[in-house]
Amino acid sequence: MTGVYVVAASMTDFGPQPETGVHDLAFDAVWQALESSGIPPDLLELAYAGHAYQGPCFGQKVLMKGGLTGMPILNVENACASGASAVMGVIHAIQAGQIEVGLAIGAEKLTRPGGGFLPIVADDLDSSMGRVMPAAFAMQARLHMERYGTTAEQMAMVTVKNRANAMKNPRCHMKKEVTIQDVLASPMIADPLNRLACCPNSDGAAAVILASETVARRLTNRPVKIAASVLVSGLRTPHGIVDDHSEMSVRASRIAYEKAGVAPGDVDVCEMHDPFNIAEIIHYEDLGFCAPGEGGRFVEDGRSAIGGDVAVSPSGGLLAKGHPLGATGVAQIAELFWQLRGEAGAYQVEGARVGLAHTVGGGVSQLEAGACGVHILTV
Amino acid sequence: MTGVYVVAASMTDFGPQPETGVHDLAFDAVWQALESSGIPPDLLELAYAGHAYQGPCFGQKVLMKGGLTGMPILNVENACASGASAVMGVIHAIQAGQIEVGLAIGAEKLTRPGGGFLPIVADDLDSSMGRVMPAAFAMQARLHMERYGTTAEQMAMVTVKNRANAMKNPRCHMKKEVTIQDVLASPMIADPLNRLACCPNSDGAAAVILASETVARRLTNRPVKIAASVLVSGLRTPHGIVDDHSEMSVRASRIAYEKAGVAPGDVDVCEMHDPFNIAEIIHYEDLGFCAPGEGGRFVEDGRSAIGGDVAVSPSGGLLAKGHPLGATGVAQIAELFWQLRGEAGAYQVEGARVGLAHTVGGGVSQLEAGACGVHILTV
Repeated sequence: MTGVYVVAASMTDFGPQPETGVHDLAFDAVWQALESSGIPPDLLELAYAGHAYQGPCFGQKVLMKGGLTGMPILNVENACASGASAVMGVIHAIQAGQIEVGLAIGAEKLTRPGGGFLPIVADDLDSSMGRVMPAAFAMQARLHMERYGTTAEQMAMVTVKNRANAMKNPRCHMKKEVTIQDVLASPMIADPLNRLACCPNSDGAAAVILASETVARRLTNRPVKIAASVLVSGLRTPHGIVDDHSEMSVRASRIAYEKAGVAPGDVDVCEMHDPFNIAEIIHYEDLGFCAPGEGGRFVEDGRSAIGGDVAVSPSGGLLAKGHPLGATGVAQIAELFWQLRGEAGAYQVEGARVGLAHTVGGGVSQLEAGACGVHILTV
Repeated sequence: MTGVYVVAASMTDFGPQPETGVHDLAFDAVWQALESSGIPPDLLELAYAGHAYQGPCFGQKVLMKGGLTGMPILNVENACASGASAVMGVIHAIQAGQIEVGLAIGAEKLTRPGGGFLPIVADDLDSSMGRVMPAAFAMQARLHMERYGTTAEQMAMVTVKNRANAMKNPRCHMKKEVTIQDVLASPMIADPLNRLACCPNSDGAAAVILASETVARRLTNRPVKIAASVLVSGLRTPHGIVDDHSEMSVRASRIAYEKAGVAPGDVDVCEMHDPFNIAEIIHYEDLGFCAPGEGGRFVEDGRSAIGGDVAVSPSGGLLAKGHPLGATGVAQIAELFWQLRGEAGAYQVEGARVGLAHTVGGGVSQLEAGACGVHILTV
C-alpha cells in the first residue's frame, strides 16, 4: 500500500457570492489548485466531489467546465463531513493502486435570495419540533456549563479567538474582530448561544490534489503526507440523551492517532469543527487536547491560540472563515497543507509539523446517525 | 493489491411499495444479504450507499435500523450509475487494504402519491424546453432507424424479451407478458418510443457484500470475482449532436474488457442499462456484442435471449424488473452473483461464467456530463 500525499490545494473566498453559481465556484477552486502547483490537468485520473445539497452529477457539472470529464467522478455526501469523505475516497483509490493522482473537490452554496437555513427533514419529529442545530448545541452547552462550570465568557472567547485569526486570512467570510462583550450582547439564538456563537451560512469551494508516494515527489518538492484518514459513523447522542462530548469525535480521533503514530500532544495545528463556539470547547476534550471538562479553561488560558499548545483553527474555523458544508472538509486539508509547508502567511503556525482536520456531520436529532472524519497530516 | 469477491447479495422486490419507507426497504436488502449468507453483521467494516434523491446521510439512516452504525459510511451519487459507484467505492477500500469486508447498498423510492417523474433541473434549458429522458432517447432511436434501418418492431422485441424474462423473476415490477403489437399500440410518449418502450418508476433496494480474496473464501465456498470495476464520466453527446451510440459505454466497456482479460464474445450474461428499449439495441453495439448498426438484427435473431450468444438482462432489466435509480447498479451485481453461482432459478443462464453489468447515468441534455459504470464478474 503506497503512502498518499497532498501535492496541491486551493480554496475560493468563503462568504456570500450571489453572482457566482456553485459549479463555477467549485471549478475556480479546481483550477487554482492546478495552476498554483503547475500540475497538468491531464494527470488527474479520478475525482471525488463532496457536497450536501447541490444536486445530481455535481462533480461532472463542475469538471466539464474545464473539459475535465472522462475520468471516474464520484459524488459523495456526508453532511458536514462530505468534504472529508471526498478526500478519503481519493486516498482509497490511490492506496488501491487504481490511480496515481486524484482530485478531491468540496463545494456548497448556502446563501439564497431571501436567506433561510438548511432544509428541515420533514419526517424527523425532533427537528420539526425545534431541535434544529442551534438548539441541539445549546443543550450541550447547558450541560457542559452545569457539569464543569464552563462559562458563557469562555464560550465567547472561542469566537473572539477565531474572529481574530480570521483577520489575517483574506479568504474568510467574517471580516470583523469582536470582543467577549460583542458576543454576549448579540441576539440570543438558542440560550446560551448568541448569534456570534454560531457560524454563518457561506458559499465556497475548495480542492486538493493527492498523489501516490512516487509521483508526489515528482510533482512537488514539499508533499504533505496523509498519516491517517479516518471516517466513522454513529449517533450524535448514543445514549439517547444530551451528551457533554461527541462520541464520534472521540472514537475517530483515537483511531487516527493510532494509525498516524502520534499523540494529541504532538498536534501543532488543528482545523476543527466549530459550527458553534461550544463545539470547539467540547472538541478540545474529544480530541484529547485537554481532559474532559477542561475545555473552557483551555481557551481561556490561550492554549488553543496561535502560539499556544495547539493552534486550533488558525484559519478562522467555521465560526469565522465560514461553513459551506461540502467545502469545509476539503478546505481544512488545504489549510493544513499550507500550514505544514509554511505557506499560511499571516496566520502561519511556526514550525508546524503535525496537523489534524476534524469534521462532524449529520445527526442533529437523537435518532439520526451522522459521520465524523479525522485526517492527520505530517511533514 | 488483493482480488475482490462478491460473497453475498440481495434485493427487495422492485415496484411500487407505498407502505414502506426507503430506509426500511434498503435495510431489508442489507438484512437479506447478511441472513442469506450467514455472514455476521460485525464483519462489515465499511459501507457505501448509492442513491440519487433520498436525502442527506442516507446510508446512516438505513444502517442504524440494525444498529450497524460505527463503521465508515459514504453516500455516493452518480444518477443511474449511483449503485455502480457504491460498488466501486467498496472495491477500492478493499484493494487499498483498509478493510477486508464491505457493504454496497443501492436504493431509491421513485413512486410518489400523485405520480410524476424525476425533477427537471431548473437551470438546464435543454430539459426545461422538453429534452427530457424519453425525448433524448427518442432522438437516438430516430437516428438509429434512419442510419441503420432499425425498425419499430425490433425495438419492441427488446421489451417483449425483457418482459418474458421478467415472468420468471418474482422480484420484478412488471408482471405481464406483452407482444410486439402491445408495445406498438401503447400510448406514444416520444415518437418513436411508446409507453412500453420505457422503463417504469420503481421503488426498490439491493445490497452486496464484498470481501478480499483471503476472507472471501472463508465466507463462502463460491465467491464471485470482480474481474473489472470501471467508471468513466463524459458527455451524453460528445459531439454536441444526437449520437447513434453511447460514447461512455464504448469507452468504459473497452477498459473493462482489457482489465478483465476477456472479450465481448466471452460474456455469457449481461445486465444492461435499458431505460428505453432503443438503449438496449444501441448498447449491444456499444459493448461489442455486435457491430455498429446491427443491434436491431441482434435482438430479432434471438442472440440476446436466454440461450442466445449473450443473455442480456435475463432478470428483466430496467424495462421489466424496474429502475429504482440508486438500486439498479447494485441489483445488477446481485443478479450476476446469482447467475454465476447457478442460483438464478427459472431465469438461469446455463453454464454462465462471465457476467457484465452496465449502467449509464446523467447527461440528459447536450451540455450535461454523466457517468457510466461497467463491472465484469467471473467464476
